[in-house]
Amino acid sequence: MQSPHDYIDQNLERFRAELLDWLRIPSISARPEYASDVRRAAEWASRSLADAGLNASVEETAGNSVVIGEWRGAGESAPTVLIYGHYDVQPAEPLELWTSPPFEPQIRDGRVYARGAVDDKGQCFLHVKAIEAHLRTRGRLPVNVVVLIEGEEEVGSGNLLPFVRDNASRLRADAVVISDTSMIAPNVPTIGASLRGLVYTEIIVDGPAHDLHSGTYGGTVMNPATALARIIATFHDDDGRVAVDGFYDAVDPDEEYRRLIRGLPFDEATYLAETGAPALAGEAGYSTLERLWLRPTLEVNGLVSGYTGEGPKTVLPSRALAKVSCRIVPNQDADTIAELLRAHVHRHVPPGVEVSVRVLQGGQPWRARFDTPLYAAAARALERAFGKAPVYAGEGGSIPIVPAFEEVLGAPVLLMGFALPGSNTHAPDEWMSLDNFDRGLHAAAALLDEIGH
Amino acid sequence: MQSPHDYIDQNLERFRAELLDWLRIPSISARPEYASDVRRAAEWASRSLADAGLNASVEETAGNSVVIGEWRGAGESAPTVLIYGHYDVQPAEPLELWTSPPFEPQIRDGRVYARGAVDDKGQCFLHVKAIEAHLRTRGRLPVNVVVLIEGEEEVGSGNLLPFVRDNASRLRADAVVISDTSMIAPNVPTIGASLRGLVYTEIIVDGPAHDLHSGTYGGTVMNPATALARIIATFHDDDGRVAVDGFYDAVDPDEEYRRLIRGLPFDEATYLAETGAPALAGEAGYSTLERLWLRPTLEVNGLVSGYTGEGPKTVLPSRALAKVSCRIVPNQDADTIAELLRAHVHRHVPPGVEVSVRVLQGGQPWRARFDTPLYAAAARALERAFGKAPVYAGEGGSIPIVPAFEEVLGAPVLLMGFALPGSNTHAPDEWMSLDNFDRGLHAAAALLDEIGH
Repeated sequence: MQSPHDYIDQNLERFRAELLDWLRIPSISARPEYASDVRRAAEWASRSLADAGLNASVEETAGNSVVIGEWRGAGESAPTVLIYGHYDVQPAEPLELWTSPPFEPQIRDGRVYARGAVDDKGQCFLHVKAIEAHLRTRGRLPVNVVVLIEGEEEVGSGNLLPFVRDNASRLRADAVVISDTSMIAPNVPTIGASLRGLVYTEIIVDGPAHDLHSGTYGGTVMNPATALARIIATFHDDDGRVAVDGFYDAVDPDEEYRRLIRGLPFDEATYLAETGAPALAGEAGYSTLERLWLRPTLEVNGLVSGYTGEGPKTVLPSRALAKVSCRIVPNQDADTIAELLRAHVHRHVPPGVEVSVRVLQGGQPWRARFDTPLYAAAARALERAFGKAPVYAGEGGSIPIVPAFEEVLGAPVLLMGFALPGSNTHAPDEWMSLDNFDRGLHAAAALLDEIGH
Repeated sequence: MQSPHDYIDQNLERFRAELLDWLRIPSISARPEYASDVRRAAEWASRSLADAGLNASVEETAGNSVVIGEWRGAGESAPTVLIYGHYDVQPAEPLELWTSPPFEPQIRDGRVYARGAVDDKGQCFLHVKAIEAHLRTRGRLPVNVVVLIEGEEEVGSGNLLPFVRDNASRLRADAVVISDTSMIAPNVPTIGASLRGLVYTEIIVDGPAHDLHSGTYGGTVMNPATALARIIATFHDDDGRVAVDGFYDAVDPDEEYRRLIRGLPFDEATYLAETGAPALAGEAGYSTLERLWLRPTLEVNGLVSGYTGEGPKTVLPSRALAKVSCRIVPNQDADTIAELLRAHVHRHVPPGVEVSVRVLQGGQPWRARFDTPLYAAAARALERAFGKAPVYAGEGGSIPIVPAFEEVLGAPVLLMGFALPGSNTHAPDEWMSLDNFDRGLHAAAALLDEIGH
């Protein structure tokens, strides 16, 4: 009998071609004008699950659909694995910085370049094809499987949690597996140790009722752009610490995790080169990995006010807008941090303007439970695919559903990611390594065996 | 013989219709894509001058053309008046805030609404038609006239000064007349007492080589948007004073002008309502009119960084840009202020980003010479048109060529403007009062007589 791993090796080219098809669909959940593409991507995912041999369906929610694939043939005594991914992608702007168009996938230098290549279509697809490999060779899976692919991860998964709560018995699982994170370095298989939570806000400063001539009126009203800058300047002290009152009160110092982080191989020069920044920076007293995984942050994600086109325009803007988000860590709470930020902004509004703070997205932080059988199985599966034992590494980003899965389903979550540093997720020229696509397929197939043993 | 004033009254409707034609041409000098419209507006102006009876030509420069109209029949002993205006207009954004489209002029409630209605096509046109009225009725003008209509006023008049220098003998004049300013209130004829100069800069903060994921990288590099905000926050102290070292060193306190300003009728509540701001603000220790005319300012004209579309996007921007301009007063110097600003920015750059400051536009401040015969003639002409003596009022804006005319041609400049407060120059729904269009025509016609007496 052919093994699932032989099947993967023999069908690798076809798997790649199928992935490129999926990547051609601009399923940008943040933009209402892409709603029909979002829908198409869901249907594509559902067909792909059915082709793999799962019982597939597209389930409606109050927002974008959830795609479900099920296989329950391992019996009631076998464990059930819930595999989660998302078919929606980030907006692709700025378009002019892409080497090839974001939704015309191109293979260059051993990489697939496209929006969603690695976040998360490319990674999610590994599990679909690993399941296909098992079912086409052995006619069965070693475990019961539920695949759940959602369409709102990039906008906060607002409708997923209600869906999970409403379908808790159908989604009941002994383990949750997610491939939406990064390896710490090429050829270093990595299991996710932590995620930061997210509090994403929009701050709007309103001054004059309409844009004014900056000569005819300049100097007599508070300029909203200046006011916004003055507010933003209060967010950090000169040591890079967030200066919002109470911001760090709940932070777990987690000395054990700090020791684990210190033991990891990390090349700061390579990391700096990836960013292309003139220098690294951040909160005084912490290393780069600690700043990423152990410490909360406050970042400006966007700014806009007045005239931003070519040449001079002498306008005094009527409004200024900032997108500002915090990454939070255990035991910070997203709602509490949102309120602290809102109170801070209102305390620092200069006279002569009005300010509103709107929370666009929130998600809680998470730490992995290393002491579960799931983590032992994952370590063996990764060692089979990569020829070496995995390391445990944090992730600075957020996957809002991870802490929610543990809470609602009571099952541990495993983050087994195959992105690489510098993959440009959320930026132009996002890519996935073809070598990791290959190894990821084998790891995903092996994981089903290791959990089923 | 019919008088020029009768002719104006009888042709008012036609004059309006002709102005609307000119306003339909989107001659936006700040935008290269409108170059052919800018050219069309110049040719339109030249035809209009020829129709009025002037010897008209379109003169090339290194940038947009200068339109010249000449009539030299008053003899060598008669004075020569140079009338200056501009056919270029500001960009019209934000388009969605216009009640009617900016380049489809509409008459509503006794006003012409269009980009350029009052800045400066509508005002410039008054002089062309006043000349036509004289020539069609009396066959001659009481003075020699040169009309100069340029196409780069809204982008700093960069090519005008070289043109004026190169054509100094042809443009030689005893008086320069410009209608590009505002009356202090409806039915209060106003002569311009001062203009502020302008230093317009673009500040660019560069951090990472490309946009980064704000989770995967957040907290480890200096955020350029945060850095820009921190720089902008240093521009003013808490009393609204500009905190750039040396900024006020050269400012002439001009107590005589301050006394004149105190004597003017000024309704602060009306002014506040015009701005639509929650409250007036500005430099402590000065009144609103002093802040506008006597004191220099620093304003943010535009801000942009990162993601500014709908919804959340978790990006750490690679670049942040601000447009920042200063209005300056006697005896400040534009180049000196640009250098002080540049030095201030570089002193306040946070570590981890790179900053550049580019000067886009500069122009010197100006004060009127009340003690010249030109000002007495203007006072009489305005009294004839409005039935009351004019007041002298400053203007917070800048007309870069005014101080340059005085320097190169050695002739005093008169600012006789017919805009009204709230005209929305440089903003959506720019308008010109039809009543002022009518009275402005009579004032312009009378001015030629009064200078020629």
